[in-house]
Amino acid sequence: MKRRQFLKQAGVVGAVGGLAACSAQECAESPQGQGSGEPKREWKMVTAWPRNFPGLGTAANEVADAVTRMSAGRLTVKVYGANDLVPAFEVFDTVSSGTAEMGHAAPYYWKGKVPAAQFFAGVPFGLTAPEMNGWLYFGGGLDLWKRLYEPFNLVPFAAGNTAVQMGGWFNKEINSVKDLQGLKMRIPGLGGEVLERAGGVPVNLPGAELFTALESGAIDATEWVGPYNDLAFGLFRAASYYYYPGWHEPGTTLETMVNKEAFDALPEDLKAIVDAACHRANDRLMAEYTARNADALHTLTEEHGVELRRFPADVLDRLREISEEVVREAAGADPLAQEIFDSYVKFRDRSRSWLATSEATYYRAVGMGGD
Amino acid sequence: MKRRQFLKQAGVVGAVGGLAACSAQECAESPQGQGSGEPKREWKMVTAWPRNFPGLGTAANEVADAVTRMSAGRLTVKVYGANDLVPAFEVFDTVSSGTAEMGHAAPYYWKGKVPAAQFFAGVPFGLTAPEMNGWLYFGGGLDLWKRLYEPFNLVPFAAGNTAVQMGGWFNKEINSVKDLQGLKMRIPGLGGEVLERAGGVPVNLPGAELFTALESGAIDATEWVGPYNDLAFGLFRAASYYYYPGWHEPGTTLETMVNKEAFDALPEDLKAIVDAACHRANDRLMAEYTARNADALHTLTEEHGVELRRFPADVLDRLREISEEVVREAAGADPLAQEIFDSYVKFRDRSRSWLATSEATYYRAVGMGGD
Repeated sequence: MKRRQFLKQAGVVGAVGGLAACSAQECAESPQGQGSGEPKREWKMVTAWPRNFPGLGTAANEVADAVTRMSAGRLTVKVYGANDLVPAFEVFDTVSSGTAEMGHAAPYYWKGKVPAAQFFAGVPFGLTAPEMNGWLYFGGGLDLWKRLYEPFNLVPFAAGNTAVQMGGWFNKEINSVKDLQGLKMRIPGLGGEVLERAGGVPVNLPGAELFTALESGAIDATEWVGPYNDLAFGLFRAASYYYYPGWHEPGTTLETMVNKEAFDALPEDLKAIVDAACHRANDRLMAEYTARNADALHTLTEEHGVELRRFPADVLDRLREISEEVVREAAGADPLAQEIFDSYVKFRDRSRSWLATSEATYYRAVGMGGD
Repeated sequence: MKRRQFLKQAGVVGAVGGLAACSAQECAESPQGQGSGEPKREWKMVTAWPRNFPGLGTAANEVADAVTRMSAGRLTVKVYGANDLVPAFEVFDTVSSGTAEMGHAAPYYWKGKVPAAQFFAGVPFGLTAPEMNGWLYFGGGLDLWKRLYEPFNLVPFAAGNTAVQMGGWFNKEINSVKDLQGLKMRIPGLGGEVLERAGGVPVNLPGAELFTALESGAIDATEWVGPYNDLAFGLFRAASYYYYPGWHEPGTTLETMVNKEAFDALPEDLKAIVDAACHRANDRLMAEYTARNADALHTLTEEHGVELRRFPADVLDRLREISEEVVREAAGADPLAQEIFDSYVKFRDRSRSWLATSEATYYRAVGMGGD
């Protein structure tokens, strides 16, 4: 299908979605059904996920649905999966230009254009999900993120978090730092850079190709997300070991980005509705991953006999040292990146003292102190 | 002031608050300003906290403000602190009867009337904040909570979490289980019951009396919340040691309760707005406690020289054994309580395996493994 033709058809679908957004009862009860003259807004949300992808994609759907429901259809949001309207990695530009009013993605996808965006997704050995939320909402992080995106005509919101991911699926044992030498692993972003400096060979592959690449031996290992998404992909059938923890992604924040002119044109109530819809997704997705990863890990180990392996301490220590170098270099890109890094590190140091005292000690007291 | 006179004055204040709820610009832009004929709703929210109490009380304000802003004043919510309209422990009955449409409190306050409500706040050695959210939203917890409150004409929502609290302020050292003998400690609820069975003397005192009771030696110890709230109360000036972890409150969920008839009478968009306002507070309060407890712990240890002490492992083990007995007994109250307990335990066992693998192991990898 040609792009122009596709866009035209997508527009038709969008309009139908808009009309269906409030039920007969809601339309009758709500003011916009009574000819108030306010323009009826129909927004497109482009996303970096396959449509309805469990967790990541369904969180985007929840943002869109919540806005549509809370506004009783005065602002309807129609979700497009990756490649429905634009490819995953064009979400940023598409919303920046106003071709779509809204996007849902992960900030580290934009590192080629905005290196400091990585801090708002998460960095290797960085903040966990509760810490990211603490930093963003009460540690100055969100204001810095807004400043970072402002020149691109975008307003960012946190809208979901994967929490600590898994280290990945391996067909080679990792018993010491030298086992990383020559390891061909699918691991994108800063994590890949860290692996490379440790002697490994990071490769980037889309999710759909992981199973075959692992099974054929084209790669020795791959990370994906965590038990819930990994189980669905069947990766356990192509690998011998499931390593933890996910040092490279300790709490990846997902984002809703809104075109700034579109956002500024909203009345105050609809602005508040967009904000709350994102908070709602942020609250729910972490809960969803907590619950569904727990069930999926149980299925993987109890039903499929998956063998869990912890990365050896010296391997984690070496990866952590390299990560600190890599992250510090990313911070050196420009003065705003440095300001973001400094804010991030200041928050991290205090929050780690607190969480070591509170949550980590509690974990040990109930027999879940990790290993 | 007589109660009737007070209520009358409060009503006047409520109406003024309602009129002020949208700015001139918002009222002009929003449909309800244009005579749609929909009834303008003015709700009262009674709370279990002093008005504007940091964290707990400000979270209640945020729920109310978000509803008012998102609805552009079609539904305004005015917040009353404890004793403004009714005392803290009458919130449940006041919303149940419809005298107020909304309340903000902690579910364990209602244990005298609804013993199983404690599971929705949190129990000693129970679920942490991320686990509570996982259980409530994706493990069947919220549906059970709705069933539990339904006979009382209430609809519950999670609306804030303190995360892991501190063990409390002590003027006696706890070096072994026998140091709990005769320990006079302010610790309410199930935690107090556990302390009593361990040989201690739990007492209940309102927050405002803690400092004097501790300083005068009337009590040997008190728990309160965590560094942020404890610092504000100045408790460090009246105690020698600050113990951790807060085994008795590992992730206390706060609740918004809505009178069922009032909720059912809302159009669908306002129902969605109430739901999202609660999710928003749930997302934000945990972040606030993460950030502000971290800063306050730093202030307490670095500026005020507070001495942190971990409860010895054998003390925690003994308290945990007793807690399991106490919690199991609470579950035996009736068939629904048992169903809630079974659901809670099933979730807990799986989530602990997952979090030990993911978050706890990550904590250790970054040097915050607790002690």
